[in-house]
This record gives sequence, structure tokens and C-alpha cells, in this order.
Amino acid sequence: MAKGILDNNENYQPGLSIDCVIFGFHDNQLKVLLIKAPYEDKWSLPGGFVPIDQDIDTAAVTVLNLRTGMEGIFLRQFATFGRVKRNDNHFEKAVLAHFNILEEDGKWFTQRFVTIGYYALVDFLKAIPHKENSTEIIEWIDHKEVPDLILDHKEILDKALNTLRIELNLMPIGYNLLPEKFTIPELQKLYETILDRKLDRRNFLRKITNIGILTKLDEKKSNVAHKAPNLYTFDKDKYEEVLKNGLNQGW
Amino acid sequence: MAKGILDNNENYQPGLSIDCVIFGFHDNQLKVLLIKAPYEDKWSLPGGFVPIDQDIDTAAVTVLNLRTGMEGIFLRQFATFGRVKRNDNHFEKAVLAHFNILEEDGKWFTQRFVTIGYYALVDFLKAIPHKENSTEIIEWIDHKEVPDLILDHKEILDKALNTLRIELNLMPIGYNLLPEKFTIPELQKLYETILDRKLDRRNFLRKITNIGILTKLDEKKSNVAHKAPNLYTFDKDKYEEVLKNGLNQGW
Repeated sequence: MAKGILDNNENYQPGLSIDCVIFGFHDNQLKVLLIKAPYEDKWSLPGGFVPIDQDIDTAAVTVLNLRTGMEGIFLRQFATFGRVKRNDNHFEKAVLAHFNILEEDGKWFTQRFVTIGYYALVDFLKAIPHKENSTEIIEWIDHKEVPDLILDHKEILDKALNTLRIELNLMPIGYNLLPEKFTIPELQKLYETILDRKLDRRNFLRKITNIGILTKLDEKKSNVAHKAPNLYTFDKDKYEEVLKNGLNQGW
Repeated sequence: MAKGILDNNENYQPGLSIDCVIFGFHDNQLKVLLIKAPYEDKWSLPGGFVPIDQDIDTAAVTVLNLRTGMEGIFLRQFATFGRVKRNDNHFEKAVLAHFNILEEDGKWFTQRFVTIGYYALVDFLKAIPHKENSTEIIEWIDHKEVPDLILDHKEILDKALNTLRIELNLMPIGYNLLPEKFTIPELQKLYETILDRKLDRRNFLRKITNIGILTKLDEKKSNVAHKAPNLYTFDKDKYEEVLKNGLNQGW
């Protein structure tokens, strides 16, 4: 967080922030990007304020870039959090003290804040946070080993994960998260990791095939002792089409 | 809208509003609740500001009640709208002029506003707006005959309808919208009205039966010439259970 924002606030929408939940998948691991500021003993989601001249979707990109240096990540809005008690006196006082700002000068920062949540799912080996001259720690942390978070950030994270799981029923997933050529068991593992439960092999094969986004290659996975599984790739055009129109598994 | 809010603003969260999209269903008609203020030539969604001491979910209930007199309606947050250009000088000036407020005194009202959208689906014969001493017109209007709306309210309405359609894939619907005893064709009509497309009769029967929320009654619909269809009712316990856990038609 930059000191300027705390006392020079005309350039930001009052009482409104954005928090980003960036999920990272690779090799059957689901992680989440968290930040720890030197003046806090808890971790936080990468968040920040809304520039007065930016649409909120643009502001989300700005916020993520400012906090993590990351660019080109497609962020989706999922919910807005606005309990009165989500503000936390302890956290706010610690921030002001760290920047040597008197409480009376930091009223813009200590007012009630409502926050808009955005999330993304990326490959954590490809999406690498980079901050120069930052005293903050930025880390990919396993989603099952999330430490104590500030404010209501745990609630925001849980809601984002729940949204991601629901999205699995509405749109395809996997592009940019798996190698170009992959096996059905690898794709199934991606779903199982996000859903945190085992799926029936035949059922999964039937459903994923029915969507029509896979191209079966005339190749088998090597380095496998016996019964080498077939390799597949995404049919990019069909994938994009389903992404646009939804899975339509419904009525 | 009350004049007090426009110039006595300390009791409200700055730059944040709530807009409610209330869908009403009855007898195969889908309507939406719209308001027309005397000082505007366009209609609007029932909306308002966020009391500084209320959680946003509570504020949504307050806003709907203030604008329509309606109570006891379950509102679901669906998205937040924050394009910079969503504000509309014309609309704001008309409101200030109507209340005889100078532009310099109405700065709280003319600042940039981000709005949180909430929606509900009710029976429009049961949920009746009532406002005493109001100069506003409140009406249930067919969702296909929506007139010009202020600001980005058309976009908000479209997004709410899209969300409602997606929700059909995630949870059961119909309780409180159909008579206590209903036929499968009546239930199918509800889905078709919301989705705005015909559904295959057998497919629908199979899917709706599989969810396990229907109880087949030992009665047939009367007043039907021949082939009287069976009557059903919702199994309330199972309905609530599925509502809680989701349809799980997914993976």
C-alpha cells in the first residue's frame, strides 16, 4: 500500500475497495496468492482502492498490478462485501502507525469500506508476481494451508472458491492450466482438485466428451509402463464457443 | 427519493447505491417492478442509498421498502456496476432541480456512484407495492415491454435476468410461484417463461423428476376435457435441502 493513498484521497472513490482472489493451479495443486505487509502479523488478499476515473473492472486490473506486478490476468467480479463490522480497528491503526499518520489525518482510510471481490484462475508457474523495492512478501500458498487473514478476507476467499466450483458447471476450464497435450485423467485431476472430491471416471469421461471441446490425438502418453492413456488437446474454436455460450447442461 | 438524503448525507455510505430488480411471475407472465418519478421521463429500478450503519444486505431490504413499501422479500446480490460513465448528468440535474437544490449543494448526490444489484423472484399477485403519499408510479411491467430506463438500469436488469436463468441450473424454483397443487406442464411453463424458450417435454419430466423435490398426488387436474394431467406438490423438506446444497447436476 502506498502512503500517498492514505492522505491524498481525492483521486479515489471513497469507502470502496477491491480485493483480488488469484487462484493458481499446477500439477494437481491449488494455491492462492497472498501478501504479507511488514506492519501486519496477518496475511491479506492483494487489494486496493478504486481510482475515481477508472471503471471498477479496470480498477481491479490496476489494483492487482500495483500490489503484485502481475499483468494480463483476466479477472471476474464475483461478489461485493459490505458488512458494517468488516472494518477492523486494529488493522487500520497498524497501517496508519506504520506510515506515521495521525488518526485524525487518516479518516479517509478509517471510514467504512465496502469491497468488491474479483477472482482469477491461472497457472502459478506462469503467473509470477514480481515487485521491486517492496517490503511486502507475496506468496502462492496452498489453499488448504491459508494462514490468518486480515478483515473478512477469509470469507472473501471462501466465497471465491465456492464461485469457482459453481463455474465448473457453467463453463469449460483447463485451457492454459494443462500442458498442450494432456490425458483425460490429468483433466479429471484438475476438476477433482478444485472440487476437492473424487469424481467417477466413466461419468467424467462421458460428460467431458459430450461437451465437444476435446480433440483426441493419435498419440499416447509416453513414460507410462503399460496401458498408456491417449493424449488429447483442446479444440480452441469449440472451447471459445462453449466459453461464450455456457455449458448448457441445464434445461 | 427523499429530499433529505440529497443534502443530509452523513448517514449514508458515499458514492454507493443499491438497485433492486424484482421479477414477478404469475400465470406464465414474467414482469419486473419499475418506478417512475414525476420529474423524470424515464422509468427506473427501485433503488436508493446505503445507510452508514447497515450491512449492504440489510440496506437492500431497507431500500426496497422505502421505494415500494414491500417487505419480507428475499433479495440476492448478483453484481456490482461501476462504469465511470454510468452517471448521467441529465438525470442528476433533473433530480436536484425537482427538489430545488443548487448544484453546489448537491455535490454528494452528483459524485460518482457505484451501485450494487440485488434481485428477487416473487408472485406479482401476492407481492403488492404500496406507497402512501407518493408521487411516484410503481408498476409491474412485462419484461418484454420495458420502457426506457434511467442511467444503466437496463444493463442491470439484463444482468439480473441472465443471473436468474443461470440460477435455474443451480437451484430449484417454483415454490410460492405456483398454486400448491400444480401439473408438470404448469411447472414447465414457469421454466419456459423465464428462459424464454420451449423445452422438450420428456426431457423436462425426466430432469425435474430426478431432482426429487416433487410429490405426485393421487389427484388429477379437473376442468380438463380428457387426459387430465396428474397433480403434484413440492416436497418442502427435500426442496429446502436441494435449495441449500444446489442441484448438483454437475460433475
